Amino acid sequence: MCNNISFLGPKGTFTHEAAHMVGENLVSYCNIPAVMESVSNGSCQFGVVPIENSIEGPVGITLDSLAHKFDLKIFSEIIIPINQNLIVNPGTSMGDISDVYSHSQAIAQCQGFISDNEIQPHYAISTASAAKSILGDKTKAAIGNSKAAEIYNLDILKYNIQDVDNNETRFVVLSNNDHEPTNNDKTSIIFSIYEDKPGMLYKILGVFEKAHVNLTKIESRPSKKGLGKYLFFVDFYGHRKDKIVQNILNELDNLTYFLKVLGSYPEF
Amino acid sequence: MCNNISFLGPKGTFTHEAAHMVGENLVSYCNIPAVMESVSNGSCQFGVVPIENSIEGPVGITLDSLAHKFDLKIFSEIIIPINQNLIVNPGTSMGDISDVYSHSQAIAQCQGFISDNEIQPHYAISTASAAKSILGDKTKAAIGNSKAAEIYNLDILKYNIQDVDNNETRFVVLSNNDHEPTNNDKTSIIFSIYEDKPGMLYKILGVFEKAHVNLTKIESRPSKKGLGKYLFFVDFYGHRKDKIVQNILNELDNLTYFLKVLGSYPEF
Repeated sequence: MCNNISFLGPKGTFTHEAAHMVGENLVSYCNIPAVMESVSNGSCQFGVVPIENSIEGPVGITLDSLAHKFDLKIFSEIIIPINQNLIVNPGTSMGDISDVYSHSQAIAQCQGFISDNEIQPHYAISTASAAKSILGDKTKAAIGNSKAAEIYNLDILKYNIQDVDNNETRFVVLSNNDHEPTNNDKTSIIFSIYEDKPGMLYKILGVFEKAHVNLTKIESRPSKKGLGKYLFFVDFYGHRKDKIVQNILNELDNLTYFLKVLGSYPEF
Repeated sequence: MCNNISFLGPKGTFTHEAAHMVGENLVSYCNIPAVMESVSNGSCQFGVVPIENSIEGPVGITLDSLAHKFDLKIFSEIIIPINQNLIVNPGTSMGDISDVYSHSQAIAQCQGFISDNEIQPHYAISTASAAKSILGDKTKAAIGNSKAAEIYNLDILKYNIQDVDNNETRFVVLSNNDHEPTNNDKTSIIFSIYEDKPGMLYKILGVFEKAHVNLTKIESRPSKKGLGKYLFFVDFYGHRKDKIVQNILNELDNLTYFLKVLGSYPEF
């Protein structure tokens, strides 16, 4: 078993920062399904991908891939604060800049700054590739983390240009197995409900209520089967090996149309 | 009171198609908040924007703007099937194409087709601007609706290249007032719950359950206040002037931290 860790690259992204907290043998992949595939086929032991941001919400491709394409487990979670910076070529001042490049989520997080400064936003595949793309042109700036600036020898002209505080991203470390119980665990599940039976979501939440188990997250995603039909992504306290959680999962099995346990892992 | 109808432009988009179903005096705006502003300040009577797609999910900027920035009401809803086509310059064959341009949602909807054909995807601000950008270059294709091809005298090389069927988008027609009761109505609300009181979502769904009122949608969005803190967008049957709905809204007022009624309107 190799101990490589795959992550959503390129180097210099926030995911790279999160992957550094897992280990040293890091391998960059260019999209989220490729990271998952590398774990699924055994070429990497762990894979690190973003799953949700407190401002922009869920990372759709991560949730959809976990629901529909891969049978991976969540081994751990990592939460890091997202501070966006205006990255420029050395010697650039604000008045020089006409265009700014970054990942669509970073652009969205800095909309106030961009419109206040009347800069034209452009989407790049990642914050790091945005930094690379501005090299040598003072009319262009990038938005990204300090690592991106460091890698390409660029300067940071303004720090923390995101619209709001409380901006943090949650990453999951995926593996083929989840984590052993630690007494401070969370469990993640995905389920869909019978569309022809109204009130099922209420009944399902009632199972948690009766067991006095608190949810830490409930997120809906379109099931891709039509408007108003959803998959629900729910996180709650407890390990799937706990008796109380086992009872909940058994009850949910009867109430849901589809149920998938993404695993149990220590709370960050 | 003018009878202009603003819509998320440019011409040739699916929103343009939806706006045509509302009336004739159409005015194109380049982003969703600008459409809302045009209604809010009275320069347009109605504004048409997308609110959710059955595959890609909610249109975040529409939900966020309705929640936080504008006090607009939903006057009606329009649902149209989304068929994506491969748009090319006349005389182009599949082998000529190396790059494809479209809005990020359209690219996401056609990921299977794009990777099967090994074409490089690029994001454009809209499906219509993508069509315009390929004019005269046979190595470039666009993805969009048939109207976009028509406007720019382009050909459709492949029809219905989206990954899945059941692809439809729901648009809302916004105004300063909602619709009078028609006996076949829906009501849309936004609420947030007290974070320190577990089980509140269960209690809130219980209010609908007790009243035998069915939800047609429940969607979570990050409240931008931190991970695990959500706004919920809920649609249900009934008009806010119905006695039964008034009772529900009164009960919800006590159970929620924040409650906003987006209005009542006939079901499409």
